[in-house]
This record gives sequence, C-alpha cells and structure tokens, in this order.
Amino acid sequence: MARTTSPGASGPGSQFDLEGFLRERTETVNAALDGFLPKANARPATIHKAMRYSLFAGGKRIRPALVLAAAEACGGALFDALPAAAAVECIHTYSLIHDDLPAMDNDDFRRGKPTNHKVFGEGIAVLAGDALLTVAFEILAQAPERKRYPVAVQIRELAQASGSLQLIAGQVADLEGEGKKLAVPQLRYIHERKTSALLCGSVRLGGMSANCTAGQLEALTDFGYHVGLAFQVIDDILDVTQTSEKLGKTAGKDVVAEKATYPAIVGLEKSRRIAEQLTAKAFAALKPFRGKAPALQALAEYLLKRDR
Amino acid sequence: MARTTSPGASGPGSQFDLEGFLRERTETVNAALDGFLPKANARPATIHKAMRYSLFAGGKRIRPALVLAAAEACGGALFDALPAAAAVECIHTYSLIHDDLPAMDNDDFRRGKPTNHKVFGEGIAVLAGDALLTVAFEILAQAPERKRYPVAVQIRELAQASGSLQLIAGQVADLEGEGKKLAVPQLRYIHERKTSALLCGSVRLGGMSANCTAGQLEALTDFGYHVGLAFQVIDDILDVTQTSEKLGKTAGKDVVAEKATYPAIVGLEKSRRIAEQLTAKAFAALKPFRGKAPALQALAEYLLKRDR
Repeated sequence: MARTTSPGASGPGSQFDLEGFLRERTETVNAALDGFLPKANARPATIHKAMRYSLFAGGKRIRPALVLAAAEACGGALFDALPAAAAVECIHTYSLIHDDLPAMDNDDFRRGKPTNHKVFGEGIAVLAGDALLTVAFEILAQAPERKRYPVAVQIRELAQASGSLQLIAGQVADLEGEGKKLAVPQLRYIHERKTSALLCGSVRLGGMSANCTAGQLEALTDFGYHVGLAFQVIDDILDVTQTSEKLGKTAGKDVVAEKATYPAIVGLEKSRRIAEQLTAKAFAALKPFRGKAPALQALAEYLLKRDR
Repeated sequence: MARTTSPGASGPGSQFDLEGFLRERTETVNAALDGFLPKANARPATIHKAMRYSLFAGGKRIRPALVLAAAEACGGALFDALPAAAAVECIHTYSLIHDDLPAMDNDDFRRGKPTNHKVFGEGIAVLAGDALLTVAFEILAQAPERKRYPVAVQIRELAQASGSLQLIAGQVADLEGEGKKLAVPQLRYIHERKTSALLCGSVRLGGMSANCTAGQLEALTDFGYHVGLAFQVIDDILDVTQTSEKLGKTAGKDVVAEKATYPAIVGLEKSRRIAEQLTAKAFAALKPFRGKAPALQALAEYLLKRDR
C-alpha cells in the first residue's frame, strides 16, 4: 500500500500515510489487547490459548483503526480510545469464531489458518467466543468517564451494536436467508446489521472516547454507516473475484451456501458502483471535520480499494 | 414450601415467608426481564423467540433472588437492584443454553422442556446464548450510578464473574475433567468457578446496587462464596438421588459423562455433611447484618434443603 490521496481532499496536505498509520496503530492495539487479556498460561490454559489464537491470527484491525481515527478526528488522545479499540476487536473476533462453527457457516479456514474449532474443538470454540464477548465489556468498562458519554452509555453503545437487533440480527437473517432469493432491501437489512452496525459503533465509540460534540457524533454515525455498507459490498465482491489463498479464508463460499449477495442480485459491475457510491457518501459525511479527519478518509478509500 | 425457621436465628422474629418472597420477587424479575428484552416479534423474530424460550422456561430465579435479598439486607430499594437481578439471570440462561449444546454437555432436556438447540437448531441456540450474554451488559448498564460503585465497576464485576477466569473457566475445567479421576481440590476449583462465581457476583451486585459499605460487601462475598459451593454440592447429590422428571433435566448424567462430583469422590453421606458445613459458613458470614438479612438466610437454608 502506497501513500494514498483521498478523493474529496485536494493539495499536498491530503497526502496521508495510511500504511504507517495502520502499522503503528495495529502495534499499539495488539499491545493493549495483550495487556487486557489474561495471559496464555492463565488457568485454564486451553481457553486463554484459544482466545489468543483467534485474536492474534493476523486480523487487519480495521475496527480498532476506525475507533482510533475517529477519536483523533475529534481531538481525543490515543490512550483514551484504546479500551474501545480493544473491545470492538474482541467482539469482532468472537463473532468470527461463532460464525465459523459447523452449526453456522462451517468454515475450516480463516485468515489463512485453521478456524478455532478445527484447532481446539467445538466446545472450546463456543466458550472462547463467549469469553471474548465477555472480556470486551470488561475492557470497555475501563474506558474513561466522559461528561457527555459516561461509561454506562459507552457500554450500551457496544451492547446494542453487537446485540440481537444489530450484529446478531444480521447473523440470524444471514443464516435464514441461505438458499432464498432475496431482494436488495432485504440484503441491505442484513448488511446494515452484520457489518455496518459494529463499524458504525466503532467510530461512534472513538468519538465518545474524545467526548465529541453531538454534531461530530452525528457525522461519525453517518460516516460509519456508509463505510460499513461499502465494506460488506466489497466483501461480497471479493468472495467471487479472489482466491481463497489471497483472502486467507474460503473464497466462493457465498455461492456454495446460496447466500444472497450484491454480485448475485445486481451483478459485479453494479456492485462496484454501489460500493463507490456508498464510499462517496462516507466521504461527504466527513465534511463537518473540514479536512481534519484524514485517517478516516484514507481508511474509507482503502476499504473500497482493498483486494483482500 | 412452608414458612422456614433458619438455623442460627432464633425466636419468632426468624420466621420468614420465603415462599411469598420468592413468588413476589420472581414476578417482579419476570416483568423486568420482559421489559428489558426486545419483544418476541421484534425482527428477526427467531432470535427473540429463542432468547425468551429459555429465559422464561420456568427457572427458579435463584440468582435474581440473591441480588434482591442482598440489596434489601443493605437497605437498598428493590427498583435499584432490578437491572442487576435481570442481568445475572440472562448470564445464567446463556450459560445453560451453551452448556446444553451437543459440543458441550449434549443435553436434550432442561427445566422439563426440550433444550434450546432441540427447538431452534444449533446455530440459533449459539446466537441466542450470545444475545443473552450481550443484553446482560446492556441491562446492567442501566443500573444506578453509586458513589462507591460506579456502573463501570458493576459491569466489571459481572464480566469478571462470568469471564474466562471464573464461570467460563469452570465450564472448561468441567469439560476437560470428564472421564478423569479428580481429587477434591480440583473439584472445588471447578465448583468455585462453575457455580460459586456467579452466585457470589449476584449477592455482591445486589449490595453494590444499595451502595453497601466495604464491610457489607466483604460479608456478602463470604456468604455468596459458601452458598455457591453448597449449591453445587447439592446439585451433584440431586443428580444421583433424584429422577429426571423431578429435576426437569436429565438425572444421572454426571455418572454417564464420568464427571467428577462430590458423591463420586467422597460418597453421598460425606457430601451431605460438606453441604451442611458450607451452609453453616454462609450463615456465619451474615453475622455483621445482625439478623437484618432474613431473606439471604432463608435462601441459603432453602438451597441446602431443596430436592430439585
């Protein structure tokens, strides 16, 4: 990844070193996660090894990066945003572990490695997911109290974004939609929940950690919503256009599972245009930041153009 | 259940109508749970039906009762303790749903009804457990801020009691202990975590909701720890002495799964004596309340003498 110039920004000031940003932030987030979680040899070792196996399997740390970029855009300090950044990654990882289970997507392969249940067995994989979900709230409870956003409000934000009306609703609708012919509005319902809810929650929590204004929170919500939808459309596209090796997970599985996806419903070309339009809306949402949100902008562009 | 006279208390003042207490508190807790959870027809209906199926399957509401009794003992108001009461029941129910999965204890029968995965399928059962775990934190985030116990502290309490070093650690050690000859200290390690941690967390959260003193919290911790251990010893005893019909779940399954239990290691008679000794320690822990914790005392006695 080279230095990127974000569309919508102009001049040399818009050059943002996203590669450097992601490398540094990923290191910081990994160190924070390592510190927040019980050690791998904490008794019983099995569960802590299983939790860490998936948490440190080389995830791209997109959600933590969004938390930290949103916090920066609102003038917040990196340190204050770390609990939220670590918490959303724990939620994301738990959802992948459970999603990969035989009773769900039945996937053997994730981030280029055998899935959690393939290594530790199904029982431990269920518990490792449960433990990551639980520790996410323990970690976020260590976030700084903010005048506009007490920790209780931040906890509710995370619980709602990942609860039965959002993230889990998306998983359920996804399961139930398999083999059915869905229309675009139904597919959008799934994408809003399965992916957009936690991405949107991530930027909102980043803003909250910086005690952002109501206006900033609204802009972040608008941004996160559209980036989240674009992210999932791209995911659907990559599933049909890339190899398993490149993705680090089983490619083509949406087709096999007869899952409704944008490429399946509207075709590949139109899917690409939709992703671009959604990203443009995300850029537009950043207007109130008047160019002071370069990391968010670069992240949105990177997520649109990624090939894995 | 008739009016009980608790050992350690004396005179007519020790007559406590536990049956009435449990009936009233269960009604209140059920109404609170109903209000905190999304409606059964909230989209996607499957997940909310599945969550409510297990949550309203006729559980004894022991943990909420402990929360409310502890709050009362510390002079707190019922209303303030309801979020904690509802939250611990959601955690308990999620742990049962996941524990009953084929990959774990593989149980078809719970509280006299088919288990969650038998009715809704394994995928939805995993997600219904996840959703109950998540909503527990959303609910507890609505607890009152307390000077000595900010909501963040209460959230950490619940997360730690149900996390990978406590409740989940107990499940893991239980899974790993199957078919192995364990000694009493190892069995106690499992019981402390699998059962005592959340019962202890329940009375502590009840105390916190009443902004209890440090001394009261210490007494509640001591009480909850010993009641929790007694509870699990009794559970082990009932598993070998009662019928499935009576228990509403599969009896004798510990023997089939070759699980280490107190009856298996030290025999039935000694197990009964251990449960009595633990309950006596729980009674002793209530001393600082000087007879002002009748509900806690009656609950401990009831848990010792229960036959299902």
